[in-house]
Amino acid sequence: MHIAITGAAGFLGQRLVQQLLARGELRQQPITRLTMLDQVEAPLPEAGDVSLAALALDITAPGALDSVLDQRPDVIYHLAAVVSSAAEADLELGMRVNFDATRALLEGCRAKELTQTRLIMASSVAAYGGALPAVLDDMTALHPQNSYGAQKAMCELLINDYSRRGIIDGLVLRLPTIVIRPGRPNAAASSFASSILREPLNGEEAICPVPVELPMFVMSPGKVVEALIHGAEVPSKSLAPFRAFMLPGITVTVAEMLEALRETAGEKALSLVRHEPDSRIEAIVAGWPARFETAKAKQLGFTGDDSFKQIIDAFVTEQQ
Amino acid sequence: MHIAITGAAGFLGQRLVQQLLARGELRQQPITRLTMLDQVEAPLPEAGDVSLAALALDITAPGALDSVLDQRPDVIYHLAAVVSSAAEADLELGMRVNFDATRALLEGCRAKELTQTRLIMASSVAAYGGALPAVLDDMTALHPQNSYGAQKAMCELLINDYSRRGIIDGLVLRLPTIVIRPGRPNAAASSFASSILREPLNGEEAICPVPVELPMFVMSPGKVVEALIHGAEVPSKSLAPFRAFMLPGITVTVAEMLEALRETAGEKALSLVRHEPDSRIEAIVAGWPARFETAKAKQLGFTGDDSFKQIIDAFVTEQQ
Repeated sequence: MHIAITGAAGFLGQRLVQQLLARGELRQQPITRLTMLDQVEAPLPEAGDVSLAALALDITAPGALDSVLDQRPDVIYHLAAVVSSAAEADLELGMRVNFDATRALLEGCRAKELTQTRLIMASSVAAYGGALPAVLDDMTALHPQNSYGAQKAMCELLINDYSRRGIIDGLVLRLPTIVIRPGRPNAAASSFASSILREPLNGEEAICPVPVELPMFVMSPGKVVEALIHGAEVPSKSLAPFRAFMLPGITVTVAEMLEALRETAGEKALSLVRHEPDSRIEAIVAGWPARFETAKAKQLGFTGDDSFKQIIDAFVTEQQ
Repeated sequence: MHIAITGAAGFLGQRLVQQLLARGELRQQPITRLTMLDQVEAPLPEAGDVSLAALALDITAPGALDSVLDQRPDVIYHLAAVVSSAAEADLELGMRVNFDATRALLEGCRAKELTQTRLIMASSVAAYGGALPAVLDDMTALHPQNSYGAQKAMCELLINDYSRRGIIDGLVLRLPTIVIRPGRPNAAASSFASSILREPLNGEEAICPVPVELPMFVMSPGKVVEALIHGAEVPSKSLAPFRAFMLPGITVTVAEMLEALRETAGEKALSLVRHEPDSRIEAIVAGWPARFETAKAKQLGFTGDDSFKQIIDAFVTEQQ
């Protein structure tokens, strides 16, 4: 079992590699080779018997992935992407990395006749937008209001069509907002959702820029990685008629997130969260859908977090 | 008012040109120039004072449209496309003509800063597919089950995103099945829908390959052209958050279509329709959605046919 991962140096990519190495198998076959691809060489974890390679390459360069595809990976995780703020700031960059590189990957698989290779791409809640219903489901249209979401939605259509034609065995998982991300606050509008928990858990102050009534659709990093792994194991024939769908996040208000923080870390941690409304962030985040019926994902055996308390507890355990 | 039309030699393109010339104005401005683009030179109708040009070009060639875009057309109708059967038979051809050429057109508009140009593309009911609800609406997801539909859906996303960014003033109209098309039966699965009316009205036999209970979502050529013209006049600010939607066709069963034929042309015409079930055609056509709530189109002032009888009567009048 050879697995290739684009964007492998990223937060999700690294966690996925660790988890795959810990499992040692995928699709009931021992993992023999793991190829980590990114702009920079991903850090190489301890890999035991697995042949592990980290390659620095530009996936937008013509033929960049040829040598990897020549090794006929059984599973490809396509996590490389330009994030939403960057794709919005630079249309060409977003189109080149988020769309053209995905298309080139599909064409590469086609040229090498990798018809049995499971290609799994991460899409996003950012693909939804416009006049959304109160509760979204698998048949809700994608009307993205940002270029990142539009590019991901185009890739979804392409991967579905290439899969329908038997060129590749594709799958696209739309990820909820990932909470709690590790690291530091960043410029992303959703940064606060991790920050208001992560910083107080580390004894630091954090700013909550949105009303506590705001509902969000979230999933822990652990469950996202679990879903990526499960995505490799779902039978191909169960994926038609459309191979892109939302993962089963959970809907929580910011108030519920903060209450879970209080339960885990006490009043002192909660008091580290300062409420400083930021209308710009609120305007962006309020447009994100928060309630989904994720029937297809559930039917295929994908699972979400049991509770927000569990998400916090998992983060605390991982930090130790 | 300068109008450019790709696919201008096609059936819809030619009707659109005739109608524009008959009106003489668009957006309350006199039409001064009309540029007809196609693989072959479109036939030049009598044009009066309008400067009319028919250019034969390959829209997939780099810079093919540069000279036209240099003239800064106020409205561009993008009707050129590879039809569904051809796009299914040849993935590269479909991607090149249906997707890449549309993207190149958008990039051309961007390079020339045609931010005020209304770009109107025709999309299709073929963009819908999969596990559809009984009645579709503006928020029904596009899960195309053919490459033509996937390519059109990708163009929709691109045109919406370029419009949202202010690069172009785009609009995509999803067309119902057009009935009654002129000409002869062809290889399209929907060919029978025109044929079972057109041939008997001309005293010829026709074959109905589907059960008469089959419902279809249809629009007359006249109403489609009217919608294309109205599409140039809808205010830009009313188009957000998503600039692609289905036009208001009417839902009729094949039995109702044939009953309308009988009313107009009598039992003799009806008796020219032979019922010869074709499971292959039925399987394709039965997957097409037939019932839509077209709220957005109606709200924007697009109108459909009043009745199927009217569709037939209009065809008879035009034939005379």
